[in-house]
Amino acid sequence: MIQGWVSVRRDQGKMVFFDFRDRSGAVQGVVLPKSEALETAKNVRAEYVVSVEGKVNARPEKNVNAGVQNGDIELEVQKMEILSVAEIPFELGSEVNLDIYLDHLPFTLRSEKSKQIFKVQEAIIQGFRDGMKAQDFTEFQAPALVGGDAEGGASAFEVNYYYDKKAYLATSPQLYKQIMVGVFERAFTTPKIFRGEKHSTTRHLSEYSSLDFEMGFIKDHTDVMAALERTMRLVVDKVGLPVAMPATIPVLKLREVQKILGVSTDEPDLEPEHERAICEWALKEHGSDFVFVTHYPVSKRPFYTYEDEADPGYTKSFDLLFRGLEITTGGQRIHDYTTLIERIKGRKLNPELFSYYLQAFKVGMPPHGGSATGLERLTARLLNLPNVKEATLFPRDLNRIDTLLSTDKS
Amino acid sequence: MIQGWVSVRRDQGKMVFFDFRDRSGAVQGVVLPKSEALETAKNVRAEYVVSVEGKVNARPEKNVNAGVQNGDIELEVQKMEILSVAEIPFELGSEVNLDIYLDHLPFTLRSEKSKQIFKVQEAIIQGFRDGMKAQDFTEFQAPALVGGDAEGGASAFEVNYYYDKKAYLATSPQLYKQIMVGVFERAFTTPKIFRGEKHSTTRHLSEYSSLDFEMGFIKDHTDVMAALERTMRLVVDKVGLPVAMPATIPVLKLREVQKILGVSTDEPDLEPEHERAICEWALKEHGSDFVFVTHYPVSKRPFYTYEDEADPGYTKSFDLLFRGLEITTGGQRIHDYTTLIERIKGRKLNPELFSYYLQAFKVGMPPHGGSATGLERLTARLLNLPNVKEATLFPRDLNRIDTLLSTDKS
Repeated sequence: MIQGWVSVRRDQGKMVFFDFRDRSGAVQGVVLPKSEALETAKNVRAEYVVSVEGKVNARPEKNVNAGVQNGDIELEVQKMEILSVAEIPFELGSEVNLDIYLDHLPFTLRSEKSKQIFKVQEAIIQGFRDGMKAQDFTEFQAPALVGGDAEGGASAFEVNYYYDKKAYLATSPQLYKQIMVGVFERAFTTPKIFRGEKHSTTRHLSEYSSLDFEMGFIKDHTDVMAALERTMRLVVDKVGLPVAMPATIPVLKLREVQKILGVSTDEPDLEPEHERAICEWALKEHGSDFVFVTHYPVSKRPFYTYEDEADPGYTKSFDLLFRGLEITTGGQRIHDYTTLIERIKGRKLNPELFSYYLQAFKVGMPPHGGSATGLERLTARLLNLPNVKEATLFPRDLNRIDTLLSTDKS
Repeated sequence: MIQGWVSVRRDQGKMVFFDFRDRSGAVQGVVLPKSEALETAKNVRAEYVVSVEGKVNARPEKNVNAGVQNGDIELEVQKMEILSVAEIPFELGSEVNLDIYLDHLPFTLRSEKSKQIFKVQEAIIQGFRDGMKAQDFTEFQAPALVGGDAEGGASAFEVNYYYDKKAYLATSPQLYKQIMVGVFERAFTTPKIFRGEKHSTTRHLSEYSSLDFEMGFIKDHTDVMAALERTMRLVVDKVGLPVAMPATIPVLKLREVQKILGVSTDEPDLEPEHERAICEWALKEHGSDFVFVTHYPVSKRPFYTYEDEADPGYTKSFDLLFRGLEITTGGQRIHDYTTLIERIKGRKLNPELFSYYLQAFKVGMPPHGGSATGLERLTARLLNLPNVKEATLFPRDLNRIDTLLSTDKS
């Protein structure tokens, strides 16, 4: 007995051939002229959900599809029950443009290609958790509703909380994972992140999943990079796709990258085209799809970033680039209470608004650091998908949010 | 070398004794009169973060603390460096009331009791994932931002989306996990759920974590209950705390519960006191901390709930109660497109607003069902905590949301 979907139906008059599929894979079936299932089989169409009983026959040698799952057998269908009829907008797996694809996700996600993408995504998140637990990190649940737009950016979505109070959606679990260093020393979380920037690119989403960790008692940011690299190696292993990953990921200061690319070292960050160019360089020179870029200027990093005493004006921070795209941001954080308050004031932010977070520093915090990796970006680059939306089950962007979209159309 | 926190300092003049702790546990240390660490040791206070070097000595037999971790050794401190000073509001682990506890979470979470709670929570979520994967479920990431308040309740928080559009925070991943049945047959997710009801109880939170799954090709709701029971058994094993769980969890129809308790069978649901009473009954009669209650009336369940043909007016739905509290809601769902539209209309909802969700049914959906378990409720009952807020790292309720709270106070 098989319960699944009809991928293909070929009616040859006296006989009907089927390709059935379920979560375990696919198999071919045939309804012979004398089968009591013939009448039902004549009515069934592509994507109908059916329950089928029959006899498994070996195929004659000339009909064997070598290398195809169940290519050596055929199901001789004796009974067929329709569990659900289906009316499809186009053939499953058709090449359609991104808008059509996204407008029909409850259908298009059923294609083999889409299922593969989200199986890879599942393996990434599992690999991340395994990598963290192997390094003695404790998983925690970071809040999504927060009282303030903590880092002072303008990109947090506002929520109408109770009694006309305002709350916000978390733009990062940063402050909470630092608090958790005081509790567990090593903590990780994989929360949803919400960014209200009006970006319309192949790299941005309004809601995405972040692979976040934070660890105490570090020497400096290089301990964080080492923990990330170990985890990333496990993720790549778990996914099992070809990735160029040498014994050590190359590490460059931002200014070294700029010299290699012939860009002014006065620029505080890399443009997308520079991210692509330095990744090409890393692949060519070091055989690596990954490259670490460190020492971004103090002005370009958040208030809690640790300044490098040996390189004033620059931070013990890093980005990890993968196949042309920044996928991770991290670094060492300030752990001294007094310094932290100075930095908050230096950014013209109000320390009162951070009093909850600052409690953790008042009661003793070790030197610590951590990083955040975008799950959808990593998925997209691992599978060489051009747009991060293809690596997101139900992407939200400037215009799109499922039923909001549907309502707009009606 | 140890890097960690000072739990206790006892200054005996010529010598100073310490209890140090890090994520691996605790150890006692002593700074002897001749130690070069003595001056630093004199300045150190409770909760300071320190880096300590010394010699591990076996304790004289009369000083051995049997049954205590490292009770047979003592660290003779030779060097001590202060990594961070600390100023604590009260002694860590003090008995304080819930408001004080919650106002100081960045500090109070560091107590052994709190750490234990969230280690148990980590084990629950890991046990849930393991249980799902062992039954061939695929993990997916459900969206938190949704276009409409899908089930028509009034409890969704409103978000100011782009260009003055409204979005909402998900009150459940229900519609998405049903869509995912069409993709993977068996899918699970552990999303954040947001409920804007003005509840002030020991059972409600504005933001909580849900352990959600949905599975296709079921006979009826009992297949879902069996999948949940297998998973719950694995969770209980993983947590390792004593739980009364017989070979089969008792199952009662709502009306049977009402008869046992002497309550009118016209009541559509159980009151909290009835949940407690039937759990006491299940423990006494069946030696079970768990009890399934099935067949809630159609009127009390959401539009997508499957009506029992054999028991008209009642649904193939269930709640799982654990130690006096409903922790899970589940059941079989309607999979037929036409029936689903009738039910939506019957609830005076507009099918147009569900067009995205309905796509999945138009292209063929198998009989399916699933359930949702509250992570914090399960954690609280496993540990016999009176208030679900104690089982939530950073609980959000009618008044409380970290920095919002802090701002209010300033």
